[in-house]
Amino acid sequence: MEGSSRLLIMGGAAGPALLSRFVELAGAATARIVVIATASESPETTGAAYAERFRELGAGSVRALRLSSRAEANAPESEAVLRDATGIFFTGGDQERITGILGGTATDTLLHGLIAGGPVVLAGTSAGAAMMSGTMITGGDGPGVTADSVRTGPGLEFLPCVLIDQHFAERGRLNRLLSAVARYPHELGVGIDEDTAILTGGDSFEVLGSGAVTVVDAGAATDIRVPPSGPIALAGARIHVLPAGCTFHLPGRRPVTGPQSEERERAA
Amino acid sequence: MEGSSRLLIMGGAAGPALLSRFVELAGAATARIVVIATASESPETTGAAYAERFRELGAGSVRALRLSSRAEANAPESEAVLRDATGIFFTGGDQERITGILGGTATDTLLHGLIAGGPVVLAGTSAGAAMMSGTMITGGDGPGVTADSVRTGPGLEFLPCVLIDQHFAERGRLNRLLSAVARYPHELGVGIDEDTAILTGGDSFEVLGSGAVTVVDAGAATDIRVPPSGPIALAGARIHVLPAGCTFHLPGRRPVTGPQSEERERAA
Repeated sequence: MEGSSRLLIMGGAAGPALLSRFVELAGAATARIVVIATASESPETTGAAYAERFRELGAGSVRALRLSSRAEANAPESEAVLRDATGIFFTGGDQERITGILGGTATDTLLHGLIAGGPVVLAGTSAGAAMMSGTMITGGDGPGVTADSVRTGPGLEFLPCVLIDQHFAERGRLNRLLSAVARYPHELGVGIDEDTAILTGGDSFEVLGSGAVTVVDAGAATDIRVPPSGPIALAGARIHVLPAGCTFHLPGRRPVTGPQSEERERAA
Repeated sequence: MEGSSRLLIMGGAAGPALLSRFVELAGAATARIVVIATASESPETTGAAYAERFRELGAGSVRALRLSSRAEANAPESEAVLRDATGIFFTGGDQERITGILGGTATDTLLHGLIAGGPVVLAGTSAGAAMMSGTMITGGDGPGVTADSVRTGPGLEFLPCVLIDQHFAERGRLNRLLSAVARYPHELGVGIDEDTAILTGGDSFEVLGSGAVTVVDAGAATDIRVPPSGPIALAGARIHVLPAGCTFHLPGRRPVTGPQSEERERAA
């Protein structure tokens, strides 16, 4: 993350509190929000639905930008719309539609440039979250921690060195996240529950929402073996379960602070 | 574990290789095996089925011992049968039936005495595995890592300082195991996949079978907060995924060795 841009990465099924936070970060009544429903099979309907929700939540201006083909993603028309945005929101659907349609296009390059130049808020939910990472989980929900229980591919790399999974607790996806970081221990595995998000700032992210973020770090593992089939061995990995208010330092690969002291006291 | 007795703790759905290993450890053609189906709702059927399987696998002598009430568990008749056994096998079912029916009875005391005196092999699968631990998971499969996503109670404490979960990968139970160790960080969380087992020896256990054993250790956690409801915070826990051949040192809370070098080379 460069400039003062921020990423708001949601694990799916975001409730009004998280969506409001996005609107607020984008400037509330002065926000200019662009919704991109590339991941969706029904981009018109999905885009219009999110646009309507952001208007209801007080966003000054909202529009859905149609980017459903590589031709549209390379056409100059969208540039002015995106350059003017204070907040850009990627909906859910299929993350491989996002990487397949936007990957390497003028829009892809422009988005990276806008974030580097800042300030803009880039948000995504579900598939729109998955594509943010350097390496993206594209599928696999098999039981067990095995090489073939997860499929991965390159994401759009808005948040490098991280591998995001979503609907995390709801779909019991720890096995596939462990499988992925065992294969790619350079990447931090970040599993985001539904109605939960990470918000980046500087070198850290903060957890928002009603669920938790599970970070799996194979960096400290003393022994990793990934046979072509059958169970993976992964000894000495670290795991952090972080609810709202917790902060995680990415280059340090460690949680920094817990929830605010008020919540800490209530919990004690 | 005292004497030279061993515990063979299976995660459910044990295949012939694991069941054969039990028969072999109990003495094969000279084995005297006792099956206890207390956990089952149909103890006669379940007990007879396992007895038949152990006979097919070459056990010298096998019998099912009916212990379906506290009266039976306190009656003197079973003592001679158990004293003569080289292998004792607890079937699956409901672990709370085992602790409710056997807990504190003459049979409970006798089993602990036999294991301390050794050598005998005490095996259990599924519910028969869960009850082995100091603290036992009795239920809870809710999504997320929360205090109310797991229910626990005392086990029969054949393997103290450990909290066993079974059908682990197949039922996506990491959330509940994390929830349990966050509440009770003294206990090592040991999640055993189906057709997979741990075999204790000295201060260690070895992993057997086709799946993996996942060990979750909150002992190193730097921050644990368990609110009455809502997400748990657990920072800095350790996780190990251990397939067959791996060994784990219990008091040291660490994996000792990976699979044999031959397997290591094949995996490389």
